[in-house]
Amino acid sequence: MLRVAVLGAGRIGKIHAENVEKNSRTRLAVVVDPWKEGADALSSQLGCDVAYDYVAAIDRDDVDAVLIGTPTELHIELMLHAVNLGKPVFCEKPIDLDYDRAKAAVDQLEALNGRVMLAFNRRFDPDYLQLRQAIDAGEIGEVRQVIITSRDPGLAPRAYLEGSGGIFRDMTIHDFDMARSLLGEEPVEVFALGSRLVDPTLDQIPDFDSVMVVLRTASGKQCHINCCREAVYGFDQRLEVFGSKGMLLNENHRPSTVRRWSAQATDVRDPLLNFFMERHADSYRIELDRFLDALESNSPMPATPRDGLSALHLANCAAESAESGKLIRIGVN
Amino acid sequence: MLRVAVLGAGRIGKIHAENVEKNSRTRLAVVVDPWKEGADALSSQLGCDVAYDYVAAIDRDDVDAVLIGTPTELHIELMLHAVNLGKPVFCEKPIDLDYDRAKAAVDQLEALNGRVMLAFNRRFDPDYLQLRQAIDAGEIGEVRQVIITSRDPGLAPRAYLEGSGGIFRDMTIHDFDMARSLLGEEPVEVFALGSRLVDPTLDQIPDFDSVMVVLRTASGKQCHINCCREAVYGFDQRLEVFGSKGMLLNENHRPSTVRRWSAQATDVRDPLLNFFMERHADSYRIELDRFLDALESNSPMPATPRDGLSALHLANCAAESAESGKLIRIGVN
Amino acid sequence: MLRVAVLGAGRIGKIHAENVEKNSRTRLAVVVDPWKEGADALSSQLGCDVAYDYVAAIDRDDVDAVLIGTPTELHIELMLHAVNLGKPVFCEKPIDLDYDRAKAAVDQLEALNGRVMLAFNRRFDPDYLQLRQAIDAGEIGEVRQVIITSRDPGLAPRAYLEGSGGIFRDMTIHDFDMARSLLGEEPVEVFALGSRLVDPTLDQIPDFDSVMVVLRTASGKQCHINCCREAVYGFDQRLEVFGSKGMLLNENHRPSTVRRWSAQATDVRDPLLNFFMERHADSYRIELDRFLDALESNSPMPATPRDGLSALHLANCAAESAESGKLIRIGVN
Amino acid sequence: MLRVAVLGAGRIGKIHAENVEKNSRTRLAVVVDPWKEGADALSSQLGCDVAYDYVAAIDRDDVDAVLIGTPTELHIELMLHAVNLGKPVFCEKPIDLDYDRAKAAVDQLEALNGRVMLAFNRRFDPDYLQLRQAIDAGEIGEVRQVIITSRDPGLAPRAYLEGSGGIFRDMTIHDFDMARSLLGEEPVEVFALGSRLVDPTLDQIPDFDSVMVVLRTASGKQCHINCCREAVYGFDQRLEVFGSKGMLLNENHRPSTVRRWSAQATDVRDPLLNFFMERHADSYRIELDRFLDALESNSPMPATPRDGLSALHLANCAAESAESGKLIRIGVN
Repeated sequence: MLRVAVLGAGRIGKIHAENVEKNSRTRLAVVVDPWKEGADALSSQLGCDVAYDYVAAIDRDDVDAVLIGTPTELHIELMLHAVNLGKPVFCEKPIDLDYDRAKAAVDQLEALNGRVMLAFNRRFDPDYLQLRQAIDAGEIGEVRQVIITSRDPGLAPRAYLEGSGGIFRDMTIHDFDMARSLLGEEPVEVFALGSRLVDPTLDQIPDFDSVMVVLRTASGKQCHINCCREAVYGFDQRLEVFGSKGMLLNENHRPSTVRRWSAQATDVRDPLLNFFMERHADSYRIELDRFLDALESNSPMPATPRDGLSALHLANCAAESAESGKLIRIGVN
Repeated sequence: MLRVAVLGAGRIGKIHAENVEKNSRTRLAVVVDPWKEGADALSSQLGCDVAYDYVAAIDRDDVDAVLIGTPTELHIELMLHAVNLGKPVFCEKPIDLDYDRAKAAVDQLEALNGRVMLAFNRRFDPDYLQLRQAIDAGEIGEVRQVIITSRDPGLAPRAYLEGSGGIFRDMTIHDFDMARSLLGEEPVEVFALGSRLVDPTLDQIPDFDSVMVVLRTASGKQCHINCCREAVYGFDQRLEVFGSKGMLLNENHRPSTVRRWSAQATDVRDPLLNFFMERHADSYRIELDRFLDALESNSPMPATPRDGLSALHLANCAAESAESGKLIRIGVN
Repeated sequence: MLRVAVLGAGRIGKIHAENVEKNSRTRLAVVVDPWKEGADALSSQLGCDVAYDYVAAIDRDDVDAVLIGTPTELHIELMLHAVNLGKPVFCEKPIDLDYDRAKAAVDQLEALNGRVMLAFNRRFDPDYLQLRQAIDAGEIGEVRQVIITSRDPGLAPRAYLEGSGGIFRDMTIHDFDMARSLLGEEPVEVFALGSRLVDPTLDQIPDFDSVMVVLRTASGKQCHINCCREAVYGFDQRLEVFGSKGMLLNENHRPSTVRRWSAQATDVRDPLLNFFMERHADSYRIELDRFLDALESNSPMPATPRDGLSALHLANCAAESAESGKLIRIGVN
Repeated sequence: MLRVAVLGAGRIGKIHAENVEKNSRTRLAVVVDPWKEGADALSSQLGCDVAYDYVAAIDRDDVDAVLIGTPTELHIELMLHAVNLGKPVFCEKPIDLDYDRAKAAVDQLEALNGRVMLAFNRRFDPDYLQLRQAIDAGEIGEVRQVIITSRDPGLAPRAYLEGSGGIFRDMTIHDFDMARSLLGEEPVEVFALGSRLVDPTLDQIPDFDSVMVVLRTASGKQCHINCCREAVYGFDQRLEVFGSKGMLLNENHRPSTVRRWSAQATDVRDPLLNFFMERHADSYRIELDRFLDALESNSPMPATPRDGLSALHLANCAAESAESGKLIRIGVN
């Protein structure tokens, strides 16, 4: 049983702590957060030890691995501390909002041969996994075009948006990771349009709320991403992969399969699972298992800090394109 | 934390033991089965105590409640033993294959004011719960017709079939419970057709493999059930409720929402979740929670031994109808 | 160009007259109805001759074939008149509401080697044709169970209901024809339940508004039919055929494929095509073509008066079962 | 009855001639094509007059209106000839492949107050019409993002491609018209990526076979179009309109609604209607009716040469963007 310290008792830390507690291969050694109220509540809910100092918790002898769900600005420091002690790390994305700091950290983590998984949870969504498997099995031949739709149910609070790094780095970054994975080749060009259609005052941050991106790889494969920070019908997450021998796509998820027929409307389905905690509950559970698999078999992590760096670079290039109205050629990162 | 003994380490006992272990309101005190190999494996998997004697386990001081997943013929004895000790019971269906024995037991359990839930797990399927909620909210007005489709993925082994009590008592009994619940009134008439279309040698048991049933309530509401012991495309479980103001129906479940398009076929979906352990995983988890809710709030059990008796009576009447070719008027049970 | 007289300028005659006018293999010679207003309007709309006497129109030299869409009680007389003149006939169902009269007429038409097609239009619905083709190609192996859902959008006027012969003869008769065709064997047993859930005063006619039927063939194949005279969500027509190697089913039809998503509901589809004139527009067009094909190739008609008689017999047996509560064994007709 | 001359007896002329023949408000006066074989065959099929000289046919006294389905290079000359005679024109798109010639012609046609409809048939597709109606009714609030998918079933013959003007002017032009209409505002910026993923030798024309476009209007509304000249699963035509209050989308069309379930795959639907003649049969029929409506009510044409010019301009800008890698600001046309 791997003894895991979960750092961070907020929304995302809570999800991970519950999964660590339920997983038959892990034991939740301690939940840690300087925010005592949150840490105490979570430790009491899950019946585990509690602590308030991140670094001290990493140092504990009864901690074999570290799961980082703290604020972004602590990610690099905590990852490096754990890796220096030879302890494997499961870290929430992003590495950092600043590309240069992130790049330096990734280089360092690699130099130390750190065992670090960056939690791009959508790579572990059952829909994505099926789609990935079908592509790998050659079902649709050569991938030609990828279309990614990604809309949040509603605008996050202003304070959150102000610290988010902007829509490309905060929201579209997930889709850039999906794009890289589904294209099977690195994008070499990106063009982006940004608009403020939900809240015109976002120009004060400044940020966009509605964006459209196109990407191209060296061999000419194409990808389109559309994002919006508000969709009244719910959290909209769809993937389409079109290839020389076919097409694959997925649907949004709902609590039940019930369909309702009335004099007003027919075949009405349930509202969508409201947001990422519900929609991606399976992903969070599966990504922990894949982390454990990689540790046990000593094989490469299924999502690495280097992947995080590449997605951040794409986000930065897209932001630059949306500002300048220019196609951005993507350098090596 | 309610300390639960799980009796039976077979397929169904394993499902329940895992759910007891994961539920935050229960502690898995002990798994019990005279089949030592199975009991040892399960206790070691879940890190709990093990025992080999059902009755002795019920007697233990550190056991607050009993979950019965043993062979059917032990259900009555074990339920009564627990109830006599004042311990609440969660028991797999059926009560017994013999109606008179079952009736006597139910009368006795009620006389003892036993807290017993009979595990009609489909009542806790999220699809059913949504459908139930919509009916209760008046969305489809007065229910007129219910159509239930229920097909197993493949014929069970001969030995199982020989001890099953026949398709009506073994398989359609679930659908009779659904019918009672969805009609909202007790059926007063039943007519059934039975055929052997999968395996003609079932006449040696004797049993049918394909049946069609129609039911009617006193006010004229109608229900149709069709069952088959083999559907090559998988475990097919569908409900349709048609009322004066609309219709509700559900769909089968699949591992992902992916749809595949090729030169040969379009919009191809995943195969169905293979069988009840996968398809009804949520139901098993939810029914345990509803059992705990009823205990905590001291409210009626959401599925009782009396419900089991009613479903068994319908099954017996259907079997009689299929044999005799006659409409059977259903007496009070 | 086959010169066709269309007898009857009502709702159904109008549909057929328009199809005759548009079909490149036919010429609409004359529309005929003693109801002068209707006949005049239709002939003026379609730019063809008009007449007011059915028999005289059949006699005309410039009429090669006769399409009968008159009131039911004239069907036999007009069919026989045309057949005696050696003219092919396309006749709306039913032959007659009285089984003995219908049987005598069918015997006579066959003795005369009349070329008569009885218009069971659902046999020419594109959905049904695809389903039929898949069954014939062995895609689902041996048929085991057929489920037919058939609900009208609303109760017909009282006067119509009083002359309709009852729900089994008026509405379910279509489904009996579908059942015979999809089972691929003649039913030998029928059981039916009838209820009055839409309008309790139908007992004065007497008639039912909601029925459930089960049928069985000699080899044990089973069929269920459910009908209701009112479905608030529209004209509901579904077929399901379950066999040893798979299942086929169809969906209801809508004016467009648009799906609507809002804060209130997701994936809402168009209301159903309202009633048989719209839903079965293709069937009416295709059945005329198949009639012409049979004439040109001198091959058997794709739907015969004998088929009409068999469906009527099933309807009568179902009505008897619903009245008596008994399973009816179906004799040879 | 409007007497119509149909110019052009090729694939598209044939579709229109048949619709003119069947429409109750039109009479097919003559089909015209210097290609005698084609003209003769079509006139014989439809039982109408035949001629071999386009201009002479327009001049005929028994011709009230002209339907132009000739090769593109004749469109302007024939439109102007008819308009100068005061005869209304229904003309296939495009006006011309050369923007300057097209612009001059449109200016001239407008100066002459010509009654000319340019046949953007997708504007008359029932799916599009429903979608349009829902937008106009405010169902989805303000439009934010439009996504258009447009894939042909297979690469057209090389000779066709060489004369087509390129994918943007030949294929995406339909989607530019849809984009303008669904956005409800003129695009002011366009960016396009072009690749050769189906046939790398298209660089010899030069042309692309796979393109992705993004458009933006002055108020920031966004549109994405993806096109490919080959989709092995068939003719793929989908629209998605996302707005502040909801989303609308449509599905591809199939010959029937049948779904097939087998041990290998579940819920398999029919292959798509193969190509535009089948998929858009309704559009061709409806657009003729809307042309006649506009003539009868003396109201504006539902699709004008000016619309054709705007779409051509967008196509040219997209082609320029794909060549240059630059965002193109769209001037007034």
